[in-house]
Amino acid sequence: MLILSEHEVQERYKMSNAIEDIENVFKTLNNDKIKLEQRTVIPTGEDSKSMLYMPAVNLEAQLGMIKITSITPNNPKHQLPTTQAKIVITDLEYGEHKAVIDGSYLTRLRTGALSGIATKYLSREDSHTLGMIGTGGMAFEQLLGILEVRNITTLLLYNRTTEKADAFKEKVQESFPNLDIQVVEDTDELLEHADIINCQTRSDVAVFNGEHVKPGTHINGIGSYQPEMREIDVKAIERASKVVFDDVDGVLEESGEMIEAMDQGVFNVSDLYASLNELSTKQLKRDNDEEITVFKCVGAAYYDLAVALGVYQNEA
Amino acid sequence: MLILSEHEVQERYKMSNAIEDIENVFKTLNNDKIKLEQRTVIPTGEDSKSMLYMPAVNLEAQLGMIKITSITPNNPKHQLPTTQAKIVITDLEYGEHKAVIDGSYLTRLRTGALSGIATKYLSREDSHTLGMIGTGGMAFEQLLGILEVRNITTLLLYNRTTEKADAFKEKVQESFPNLDIQVVEDTDELLEHADIINCQTRSDVAVFNGEHVKPGTHINGIGSYQPEMREIDVKAIERASKVVFDDVDGVLEESGEMIEAMDQGVFNVSDLYASLNELSTKQLKRDNDEEITVFKCVGAAYYDLAVALGVYQNEA
Repeated sequence: MLILSEHEVQERYKMSNAIEDIENVFKTLNNDKIKLEQRTVIPTGEDSKSMLYMPAVNLEAQLGMIKITSITPNNPKHQLPTTQAKIVITDLEYGEHKAVIDGSYLTRLRTGALSGIATKYLSREDSHTLGMIGTGGMAFEQLLGILEVRNITTLLLYNRTTEKADAFKEKVQESFPNLDIQVVEDTDELLEHADIINCQTRSDVAVFNGEHVKPGTHINGIGSYQPEMREIDVKAIERASKVVFDDVDGVLEESGEMIEAMDQGVFNVSDLYASLNELSTKQLKRDNDEEITVFKCVGAAYYDLAVALGVYQNEA
Repeated sequence: MLILSEHEVQERYKMSNAIEDIENVFKTLNNDKIKLEQRTVIPTGEDSKSMLYMPAVNLEAQLGMIKITSITPNNPKHQLPTTQAKIVITDLEYGEHKAVIDGSYLTRLRTGALSGIATKYLSREDSHTLGMIGTGGMAFEQLLGILEVRNITTLLLYNRTTEKADAFKEKVQESFPNLDIQVVEDTDELLEHADIINCQTRSDVAVFNGEHVKPGTHINGIGSYQPEMREIDVKAIERASKVVFDDVDGVLEESGEMIEAMDQGVFNVSDLYASLNELSTKQLKRDNDEEITVFKCVGAAYYDLAVALGVYQNEA
């Protein structure tokens, strides 16, 4: 069996690979060659401590996988990550279990790739300033996703705890010395300059004022994945002329801000512009430079499948 | 991560370990410290080719596992096993994925242990002749389970293809040179002498005539795990004074012969003597030497959990 640690996956598989593999998986999905089952959750303690199991198979590639994720909310107190994932890959032809791949970086990478793909189609091509709200564990790969598709020269960072934004700035500056990076004190300052806003928080209230979003801005929201969480302001959803979901059923069930927007009557399922799948396969774009566009992302097993098989097939 | 191949598990973990760990797991189960979810099945091809996922956690031990099984019915044509399993073990305290253990031998071993436990409580203590019907992939560990609990001196083997019974005889004789082993040409000959009958076939019809079972015989049936399969003759179920299931819900849903016996009105759920759990925890026994007793087994995730954690904890 092939065993790959987080570090080994990081060395072998990059953002460009993830974006390509995810855009390719849409074709397989549309040919009905990907089979999924509802994810299984077993609660293992308080505060939503739990085990999550997400299986999926690709009948075209004759490969299957399951992502096994532990969620341990107390872990940050012990300098350990809240979510830890492993992916087991099975060759369906002879039923042989072929690989165990660390899934933690891969989950962050695929989520960054999803924002990257949405941003490639929805943001203005002349977007140069990225504003990031939330500089926690998911932020670095979100940045990588945007840098892959747009020529970003200025990065604005906001975090509720400013020291964490400072530490993130330092880490990013090391990897990207030419990037102009500023930590801002409030989100209005960020909204004033950002062409793209990327939210990755665990907030349960909107993290910016939707009234202050500039025309022409594209917004990605990847932090809220439960009905009680929210980060994109409902006013921004109301003002947006194009709203895109990474997985329609998933977002409608899990995204707190979209559920709130529907409850308030400012968003309806029929208002959805496209799924990410449609955006990518039909190469849809924004219509003009004044539109506000929103991408809401909660994740889905076929995205994990796409990147896990990508890593495995690169080795084989 | 600890990685153990089939051979490494075989070297470290024996039938006596499995029987002990399974009898211990009943206490944890009865304290409501084991959490399970329905197994997930994704069909991957024709003839019930599929992927099976069975998760379970032990909150007392703070360890969780999932067994990932591929079922590839065409595999025997390529000299490969039909079922192949891997088990991933997670430490729930910090959510760390600790081990990947081959689950193929372990599945056979726990199934043998289940027959062993049932036989310890239900068969006559002076049982010396074991008759095995079906000498395929599950047979060897079934034999180990019975040898662990009864002083077997004579082994009778029946298989539809006699050459396979001969090959199995040779393999068993090597491991147990003192055992008197005979291949029989029909099951009536086996029934005439056997104190214990052990069935492990993939049959869809009864594999022996239930009218010819001797008084005092104990019968284990582990082969039929789908409604369209059956191996224990319904007449034997009708004649049995004690019927025990390894998992009550599982057997009622999956065992073809029990479903048929209920349809025919010769067995009712209220006729069930005990679950294997009750048999073990209450140390129930047969009442006399004339009774016919039946154990029907389809497997359950908590049995996999018991042996997988047993292997892991032996290493830790």
